[in-house]
Amino acid sequence: MQRSILLTPGPATTSDNVKYAQIVPDICPREQSFGELIREVCNKILLLANGENTHHCVLFGGSGTAAVEACISSVIPDTGKVLIIVNGAYGERIAEMCKVYYRSSQYEIYQEAPTKLPCIDKIEKRLQSSPEISHITVVHHETTTGILNPLEEIFALAKNYGKSLIVDAMSSFGGIDINLDKMPCHYLIASSNKNLQGMAGIGFVLCEKKTINTIANFPKKTLYLDLYSQYQSLLLKNEMRFTPPVQTIYALNQALNEILEEGLAQRISRYSNNWQCLVEGMAGLGFNMAIPDMPQSKILTTFLEPDWPNFSFETMHDFAFERGFTIYPGKTLGIRSFRLAIIGDIYENDILNFVIIMQSYVKKICYI
Amino acid sequence: MQRSILLTPGPATTSDNVKYAQIVPDICPREQSFGELIREVCNKILLLANGENTHHCVLFGGSGTAAVEACISSVIPDTGKVLIIVNGAYGERIAEMCKVYYRSSQYEIYQEAPTKLPCIDKIEKRLQSSPEISHITVVHHETTTGILNPLEEIFALAKNYGKSLIVDAMSSFGGIDINLDKMPCHYLIASSNKNLQGMAGIGFVLCEKKTINTIANFPKKTLYLDLYSQYQSLLLKNEMRFTPPVQTIYALNQALNEILEEGLAQRISRYSNNWQCLVEGMAGLGFNMAIPDMPQSKILTTFLEPDWPNFSFETMHDFAFERGFTIYPGKTLGIRSFRLAIIGDIYENDILNFVIIMQSYVKKICYI
Repeated sequence: MQRSILLTPGPATTSDNVKYAQIVPDICPREQSFGELIREVCNKILLLANGENTHHCVLFGGSGTAAVEACISSVIPDTGKVLIIVNGAYGERIAEMCKVYYRSSQYEIYQEAPTKLPCIDKIEKRLQSSPEISHITVVHHETTTGILNPLEEIFALAKNYGKSLIVDAMSSFGGIDINLDKMPCHYLIASSNKNLQGMAGIGFVLCEKKTINTIANFPKKTLYLDLYSQYQSLLLKNEMRFTPPVQTIYALNQALNEILEEGLAQRISRYSNNWQCLVEGMAGLGFNMAIPDMPQSKILTTFLEPDWPNFSFETMHDFAFERGFTIYPGKTLGIRSFRLAIIGDIYENDILNFVIIMQSYVKKICYI
Repeated sequence: MQRSILLTPGPATTSDNVKYAQIVPDICPREQSFGELIREVCNKILLLANGENTHHCVLFGGSGTAAVEACISSVIPDTGKVLIIVNGAYGERIAEMCKVYYRSSQYEIYQEAPTKLPCIDKIEKRLQSSPEISHITVVHHETTTGILNPLEEIFALAKNYGKSLIVDAMSSFGGIDINLDKMPCHYLIASSNKNLQGMAGIGFVLCEKKTINTIANFPKKTLYLDLYSQYQSLLLKNEMRFTPPVQTIYALNQALNEILEEGLAQRISRYSNNWQCLVEGMAGLGFNMAIPDMPQSKILTTFLEPDWPNFSFETMHDFAFERGFTIYPGKTLGIRSFRLAIIGDIYENDILNFVIIMQSYVKKICYI
């Protein structure tokens, strides 16, 4: 099996054991043993977030965005209003969903530049000036930039003001410590194919047990993505309502075994070490971080494109790609940038090899 | 690899080559070579339906129901009205979607018993009495029962009256001949994991090229499932808008190679032969078809539960399951029934083996 190293925000590089976990005898997903697998997968996801006592795990067949939409479309009551914190493309995407599903009086957007952190004081002022706000959404790790948003502070604020908090933890879950027992966010959303190192095709919403029943009778805005119906089906029958991506669930189960075996702390430490090697190695070659003074996820970093005559992202991409490494373009920053993530089944040696390849690329384009 | 025979309406039994097609080096789905794979998969699906000149193929990550919902939620204008033909659970599901997305004046339901065919005359009367109807939906093969609905006649009617036809071909596509060049339905929907013999996780909508742009400016009712945006992304970039189920697409590509190699006519003939063996074998054991006088899909059949003292679906299921065969319960017929499908990578010998196992089961419960 040729090993490709994806320095992208996910799908990430997976282990061979995760790949081969997809090879199982065909099974009807309505069989009891498959239901047991679904239950096991949900329990392992909850275990990772220390949410076994506080939360339910609701799986959806689809990308992470499908799970975000399931949550956003299902949890805001007619009388509610959601404050959407935006400092990047994934915050924007939540705003886009709210525009689809809600009247304009049902949401407001707190927009910061993608290079900035949301400001806790400004959020608090919004809550004070719009007491009708019932929900707050935040993207934990904004993959647009690599900025880590201040989840703990926003959680504390939401709690103080009695607001429901919806966390898009797509690219932080499994790579940053999230303890739902200590920080019981109402809804927390992620997917199979980023820091969990599974295959793409499953998104999930962790829903607070204490409050999930408050959404039971909300008017349904979608059938496939209806969160409460899916929750009930999983609770009562260990079944997703519609045909699940069977093999992807087996792969996710294996990926969960691997993160539990590695240990979340150890995975976070491996990722941090990968990140440190990458950032230092790239700095040594003259590639600088675009937003060095912001809190970093240490999962993905935006680098400035250097101002060298022969540099282009495309030639660098192709040079790395031919050598087994995939790099990722920048997104909506208004500056020439590219992004590198360090997640997946990849290790310090892979990062060091990548830096060597980048060194060759730099030498090549600079004719040294 | 243990071979399990799923006599269920799908996910179906897959070949080993489809299973192993999931084992590929990790790839970022934004890479050009993955875009080429997406294009190839779409083209092969269109080729199967002879729709290369007339239709676009729009893929979604999710179950077949996700693709049905993408279509239903995206194609009915504010001024339109949809006539929903219902004679089983999958017609009901479309009605449920319309209830979620549309005002009650925007849809009407023509309901027949699940044991009956929709009546062309009654449909025509509806079109005459409700000229505001703009769209008609029909489930080609109603998997609730195994009844094959009269698609050609409904298409002719829709054409005569200038209505758009939406066909849920989930469990007929690839197992019954559908020629979009001769019968250019506006929208035809199916998934990866039934007669195509791929893995679950991808649904698709085949959209008529000539009319797809009429939906361009309809107000969006969903982000993830928005048909027009997904169509545009695939057309312009060969990309699904949100992370696709990468490995499932590789498996689908292999499954499409296999159906194109087998030939659609040959696959249909294999399925028909499987069906004939099954129905005859079961009849020999005293299991009768529930609705023998209706047009049969020859893909799935509903059998009456026999009135024997020791018979139960559960014991029969478990007896068969222990021997490698999975059977399926009945659905909403109001009579005790069970269902058997003959799709997937299964052959006459498998059916004959199943009949022998059923014979053992019958002997066992009858103490012969």
